[in-house]
Amino acid sequence: MKDEAVTMEKIVALCKRRGFIFPSSEIYGGIGSSYDYGHYGVLLKNNVKERWWHALLRERDDVVALDSAIIQHPRTWEASGHIAGFTDPLVDCRTCKLRFRADRLEDAACGRKPSLHPGQGPDCDLTESRNFNLMFKTTVGPVQDEGATVYLRPETAQGIFLNFRHYLQFARKRPPFGIAQVGKSFRNEITPGNFVFRMREFEQMEMEFFVPPDQAGHWYEFWRQARYDWYVRLGIRPDHLRLRAHEASELSHYSSATSDVEYLYPIGWQELEGIANRGNFDLTQHTEHSHQNLEYVDSASGERYLPYVIEPAAGADRATLAFLCDAYDEDQIEGETRTVLRLHPLLAPVKAAVLPLVKRDGQPELAREVTTLLRDRMQVEYDEGGAIGRRYRRQDEIGTPWSVTVDHQSLEDATVTVRDRDSLAQSRVAIDTLAAELEARLYAPWRSPKLA
Amino acid sequence: MKDEAVTMEKIVALCKRRGFIFPSSEIYGGIGSSYDYGHYGVLLKNNVKERWWHALLRERDDVVALDSAIIQHPRTWEASGHIAGFTDPLVDCRTCKLRFRADRLEDAACGRKPSLHPGQGPDCDLTESRNFNLMFKTTVGPVQDEGATVYLRPETAQGIFLNFRHYLQFARKRPPFGIAQVGKSFRNEITPGNFVFRMREFEQMEMEFFVPPDQAGHWYEFWRQARYDWYVRLGIRPDHLRLRAHEASELSHYSSATSDVEYLYPIGWQELEGIANRGNFDLTQHTEHSHQNLEYVDSASGERYLPYVIEPAAGADRATLAFLCDAYDEDQIEGETRTVLRLHPLLAPVKAAVLPLVKRDGQPELAREVTTLLRDRMQVEYDEGGAIGRRYRRQDEIGTPWSVTVDHQSLEDATVTVRDRDSLAQSRVAIDTLAAELEARLYAPWRSPKLA
Repeated sequence: MKDEAVTMEKIVALCKRRGFIFPSSEIYGGIGSSYDYGHYGVLLKNNVKERWWHALLRERDDVVALDSAIIQHPRTWEASGHIAGFTDPLVDCRTCKLRFRADRLEDAACGRKPSLHPGQGPDCDLTESRNFNLMFKTTVGPVQDEGATVYLRPETAQGIFLNFRHYLQFARKRPPFGIAQVGKSFRNEITPGNFVFRMREFEQMEMEFFVPPDQAGHWYEFWRQARYDWYVRLGIRPDHLRLRAHEASELSHYSSATSDVEYLYPIGWQELEGIANRGNFDLTQHTEHSHQNLEYVDSASGERYLPYVIEPAAGADRATLAFLCDAYDEDQIEGETRTVLRLHPLLAPVKAAVLPLVKRDGQPELAREVTTLLRDRMQVEYDEGGAIGRRYRRQDEIGTPWSVTVDHQSLEDATVTVRDRDSLAQSRVAIDTLAAELEARLYAPWRSPKLA
Repeated sequence: MKDEAVTMEKIVALCKRRGFIFPSSEIYGGIGSSYDYGHYGVLLKNNVKERWWHALLRERDDVVALDSAIIQHPRTWEASGHIAGFTDPLVDCRTCKLRFRADRLEDAACGRKPSLHPGQGPDCDLTESRNFNLMFKTTVGPVQDEGATVYLRPETAQGIFLNFRHYLQFARKRPPFGIAQVGKSFRNEITPGNFVFRMREFEQMEMEFFVPPDQAGHWYEFWRQARYDWYVRLGIRPDHLRLRAHEASELSHYSSATSDVEYLYPIGWQELEGIANRGNFDLTQHTEHSHQNLEYVDSASGERYLPYVIEPAAGADRATLAFLCDAYDEDQIEGETRTVLRLHPLLAPVKAAVLPLVKRDGQPELAREVTTLLRDRMQVEYDEGGAIGRRYRRQDEIGTPWSVTVDHQSLEDATVTVRDRDSLAQSRVAIDTLAAELEARLYAPWRSPKLA
């Protein structure tokens, strides 16, 4: 069961208070459904992306990376079907000039007559519904006519299909292999919302895994499980996570099977990541539209085929939000309520805080030295301001797994105390083994077994 | 003097051949001045960005991170002056419908009458010059009228000024301190070119360092030198790098001093990064346009002021190109010309290649185990295909600093040979100390001195 203590309001408040995430352009009144990541938010989200790369590029031999442009050739979106079909049905209100989704009028409210649209009262002057494309359109370069209309990509995936041929050549890859990409995508949606869960500008982590057609079923099952496991390895509680296979009626026309990894957000079960068997739909479309042969040809056997594609498509913002929600906890310490983010140490924005117990007797100087010792190995923070208990709480709120305290004894025997965020246990560690000790705690659970 | 061997053509060819960088949307004929980063290009550019973060966030206590939206409130660009002044003077050709920079007509060529524009021959039907804004314009959200026109940011810097207030609060920062950001920017330029040196869509690494007004001169000098040193630390040869202070006539109206770090690209000396003393221009503008007080108030002394800003603004693509150009070398080995990228190990896309000498006798199996041992610590590549000499050359071309070879002796005494990319020296290392040995070689030159 979802912890009752965690509400979206609490997450939003913590994010703003501690500078993880706050509304964009706030000094100008904001810009709807757009958020900026502050210091700890950047560090956290960078760690999420880094772990995604790690699971695909570092741990595997069969995945390579790509970073394609946000503005691609406009024919990309003809081939992909986005120009024709990536639409929402919309109505305009002639009174307030706002636009609403025709299929979600129950959520709509007229800007001038607030009670109007719910139920579409008789005074409410709505236009007929028409399809409105969700791609942001702009104009590029020196040509004046329509040929220069381009789009901000609504997904990173198509950039991968456009470059597929290159990877057969330079990367000497043969299916099964994957191409992975992290980057911004843009969707001009009418009713985004729920904090960073749905934004007009968002960051994706997508992979297209190209396989021989007869292996598509096997790899679909493989990636479903592997992607589910990734969240569990990074600390999401299994009872807050589920794999849900789409019903036949939910499937896109090009997909023979899709599963969502769903997370139990404070707003309920929502999609965190989709894993789809896209068949050879995309490569077929781009073959037709580009008149290029995108087949894989096996030089030994002469076999040739259009690979099938398994696509795990994750959202970096949604994943970050899920990790925040799942880590959020409140407990009681010494009669006070403590807010603590129990983030996996590899995701935590700051790995260790170095705190002199008092601001004299050489403690700040030694604590600075300890900070220097650690900072090349991990993100650390030095803090000498305020009572020690308050400094611990501050670190608890941003999820710092270890607080390293320099005290009177440190000056005598060159040891420090290491306080654990979750167990609150304190242990004394020699300064000269501290970096290695913390690195071991940080990486050990993730690292592969050593050679015997 | 610049090495004659390095030409832009050679760099472009290597980048395409080995999948560092290739033209965007190529299967649809490309889209001008837009490039995609392939596998090794992503790894290299990620390392460049990671080292930038490392120098600012890890090594210092006075810099924090931000990741603001690409689409900001449009009033941002009124305040910054971009709507009024971020323009190029352009003329249209009525014959070919192309647009050209009025101040660079010597580079222009009519699409239909190729010899026309150079010199503006009498048949050439050009319009009067008018100013054309370089910001990409698009429309956001549900409102139909002009109010919904927004821009893709032409620089990341303004997002920092918009959020400045937040950082005084949550980050408990007081000047001098910096806010750093990495992200895409977009400029709809007419004549970009020179590979990734100038693209319409590009990635910036910018910091705004806020200081008390009377410290602006000191910090300007500090960041000029620190940013120059960063390139040298990462292996750029000092004689390919220079700091050039702008003449008074070159300065923007808001800047009292600007210096460029320039690199000797194959196309000549060009700007790699600019370091500007922007005074309090931006905070003044945003104060006026937002009617918010952006002053820093010292709670102890009651002192209040608008901080001055020192801005080191670097391009991730330009830096990546400079590192590639500077690393490019050709030498002679055993009578053959070898192409080698002498990249700093921390920048190299792959740190170590693991190669079984022959594809039998248990060597591939042991080499796989060695790969597993290393892969959690660094990006590694396993390669068993082809003659060993050819596999070495392949790694040399992508700049891999160490090749680890598993041979007959490895099966007997659990040692491997480590070949150095630059010196070609080979040394035998015990497998159980290999990871630590390579990590030491990788990080040692960068790490701070240990405590005595």
